Amino acid sequence: MGPGPISVDPRVLRAMAAPLVGQFDPFMTTTMNEVMALYRHVFATDNEQTFLVDGTARAGIEAALVSLIEPGDRVLVPVFGRFGHLLAEIAGRCGAEVHTIEVPWGEVVAPEQVEEAVLRLRPKVVACVQGDTSTTMCQPLDDIGRICAEHGALLYVDATASIGGNEFRTDDWQIDIATAGLQKCLGGPSGSAPITLSPRAVDVINGRRHVEAGLREIPGGEDSDTASGRVIASNYFDLAMVMDYWGPRRLNHHTEATSMLYAARECARLLVAEGIDDAVARHARHGAAMLTGVQGLGLGVFGDLAHKMHNVVAVGIPAQLGAVGGDAVRGRMLEDFGIEIGTSFGPLHGKVWRIGTMGFNARRDAVLTTLAALEQVLRAAGVAVPPGGGVTAALQSYAGAGA
Amino acid sequence: MGPGPISVDPRVLRAMAAPLVGQFDPFMTTTMNEVMALYRHVFATDNEQTFLVDGTARAGIEAALVSLIEPGDRVLVPVFGRFGHLLAEIAGRCGAEVHTIEVPWGEVVAPEQVEEAVLRLRPKVVACVQGDTSTTMCQPLDDIGRICAEHGALLYVDATASIGGNEFRTDDWQIDIATAGLQKCLGGPSGSAPITLSPRAVDVINGRRHVEAGLREIPGGEDSDTASGRVIASNYFDLAMVMDYWGPRRLNHHTEATSMLYAARECARLLVAEGIDDAVARHARHGAAMLTGVQGLGLGVFGDLAHKMHNVVAVGIPAQLGAVGGDAVRGRMLEDFGIEIGTSFGPLHGKVWRIGTMGFNARRDAVLTTLAALEQVLRAAGVAVPPGGGVTAALQSYAGAGA
Repeated sequence: MGPGPISVDPRVLRAMAAPLVGQFDPFMTTTMNEVMALYRHVFATDNEQTFLVDGTARAGIEAALVSLIEPGDRVLVPVFGRFGHLLAEIAGRCGAEVHTIEVPWGEVVAPEQVEEAVLRLRPKVVACVQGDTSTTMCQPLDDIGRICAEHGALLYVDATASIGGNEFRTDDWQIDIATAGLQKCLGGPSGSAPITLSPRAVDVINGRRHVEAGLREIPGGEDSDTASGRVIASNYFDLAMVMDYWGPRRLNHHTEATSMLYAARECARLLVAEGIDDAVARHARHGAAMLTGVQGLGLGVFGDLAHKMHNVVAVGIPAQLGAVGGDAVRGRMLEDFGIEIGTSFGPLHGKVWRIGTMGFNARRDAVLTTLAALEQVLRAAGVAVPPGGGVTAALQSYAGAGA
Repeated sequence: MGPGPISVDPRVLRAMAAPLVGQFDPFMTTTMNEVMALYRHVFATDNEQTFLVDGTARAGIEAALVSLIEPGDRVLVPVFGRFGHLLAEIAGRCGAEVHTIEVPWGEVVAPEQVEEAVLRLRPKVVACVQGDTSTTMCQPLDDIGRICAEHGALLYVDATASIGGNEFRTDDWQIDIATAGLQKCLGGPSGSAPITLSPRAVDVINGRRHVEAGLREIPGGEDSDTASGRVIASNYFDLAMVMDYWGPRRLNHHTEATSMLYAARECARLLVAEGIDDAVARHARHGAAMLTGVQGLGLGVFGDLAHKMHNVVAVGIPAQLGAVGGDAVRGRMLEDFGIEIGTSFGPLHGKVWRIGTMGFNARRDAVLTTLAALEQVLRAAGVAVPPGGGVTAALQSYAGAGA
């Protein structure tokens, strides 16, 4: 019940045990095309270029940024938690001139701040996290998308922690590239990063397309064309080449991680079968029950609750425990009850636990069991907790939600 | 029966279906340590820094090169096939001044050529493929390792296609970094790249260590130290940070791809249980039977057989078939017999098929069935093949090998 990775849906685990086929076997290429179609639903987009990057969510971020950014490009990053810092760091390693807008942890960025900075800096790229698990905040994106479109900036969004559990609309919000991971609300393992690219982003990246040395000799000539733009600094994350691999050219690049492809397909199939709006509503329902439950135990909750992600809550560690006592509680939860709750980074380290309700763990029994166990562990640690306070409050939350 | 990815060992598929635990769960960190110990056996090394890069084999290559190379560094690449070109291309994207030694496809590089170039160019890094599936050649490395050590160059080796099926000795051959993949002789799926680093390579890379923005605030101070060297151009592939994640500091970086970790562990466990020398001998035995078998069908074989990898053979497409007929044969093998054999790249495109005998497919029944099917398909395509010529020759090869 941490902030992710979380327990994987057993159906996804089973999908990974399927036999492998060759890279260009018709079953393989059909499966790749299915994955593209499924993730168009997940990202709420018509973007043709919707596929997987072979690596963890962070690989998706880096693929997007290194493929867009040329050294010297101006990039604006709204920072409201650890993962904003990560975007700024990766953009910096790509050679960008990075500018940030920082707000205190526990808040989100106002559209006016973004508009002012975009007008002042005229960035090529605005890079933003939707949900930052370090603070639990969920950044509204529709206004930022509108601002970027109006002023000609490309908008990149990292939706790893939020997608599937909070509303996400690539096309409606005018997002140029979005990336994700499986290990949060999608209920899968880490190791595959779904990505979608708008036609505008595709044009920018294909302007830097260079066919790999060693493949240029392939007869036919058509595959040897290269663009005039600056070569992308990474081969593995060169999205122009990855698009040639996923597209009808099927130009060999990396060897697709087939078991992770199966996992990604199953994650999306389950989500689409449930209905994406229904999945978001499920995360909202169980997230509300967990929030109400920890409050019912007398615990404080961190951050602007109006902008909290549905799928994670930052719970104040009682002052009497301190950071060491907080870690001891996590230890007892894991050792005595087999339940993981999360620690925290940066300014929140030692101050809050992060408890997730996402993917396969966004379930009533998981929420109630966690609250029941936490009550026991807190009491044993000497914290005065109302008997049954957590579970009762959560049950009332469910009753109010008609669940 | 292609050149990889190949059929995954069912025990590895089963391992991937195991439930996930949290990133810092004691079971998780214990498993990571087990994987490190197992791959020390696989790489025949005492290197402490032996772990996984989360991505395909190509991710391992890029992680090694981008972490070693600073812009302007001189890099020497012996090229004897497509994957040598790939190393040169990746080194170039890292900003290296790249020099190559090229030999015709089907040959390997002589140590004298490497020594002459090392003395003339004084490269910081020599980057070499061990087994290049594009040509089936296996480059001897002991002399190259000695030359690099004598003249102060760091030796990087891509052992993806060869390790587990051909002798590989990191320490004895004085290799500084070696990387691999699971999808060839290790019998696993693509998506995880084992890597090992010598203490010398670790020192070079830790000279460029910079703790990630967003983690620097962690209390204790010790984790906020950074080195003076130039920041590595990639965050995802920054091996200094990846070592901090796998090492006792357990500094959060990416979220380890747990299912692939399980797969990598099972691949290595099976190899170590079999005995690495025995596994190499198995690949030699079945590779010899396949080679003898295709010759028994009257087909030519490409390249210097004294330096062929055990696990793949490049089989001449009969001239009467041409490239189109060659593809038709592959199609019939797949459609009628469910057996994949490989196509080829670059100068060999349309001229040879590549047939693998690796990992789980290095088996007597797999070899004999492939030869029996190929005989049928070739005859139907109008090629004069001796009845039973392939299977009989393979059986004789096995009998000669005492198998």
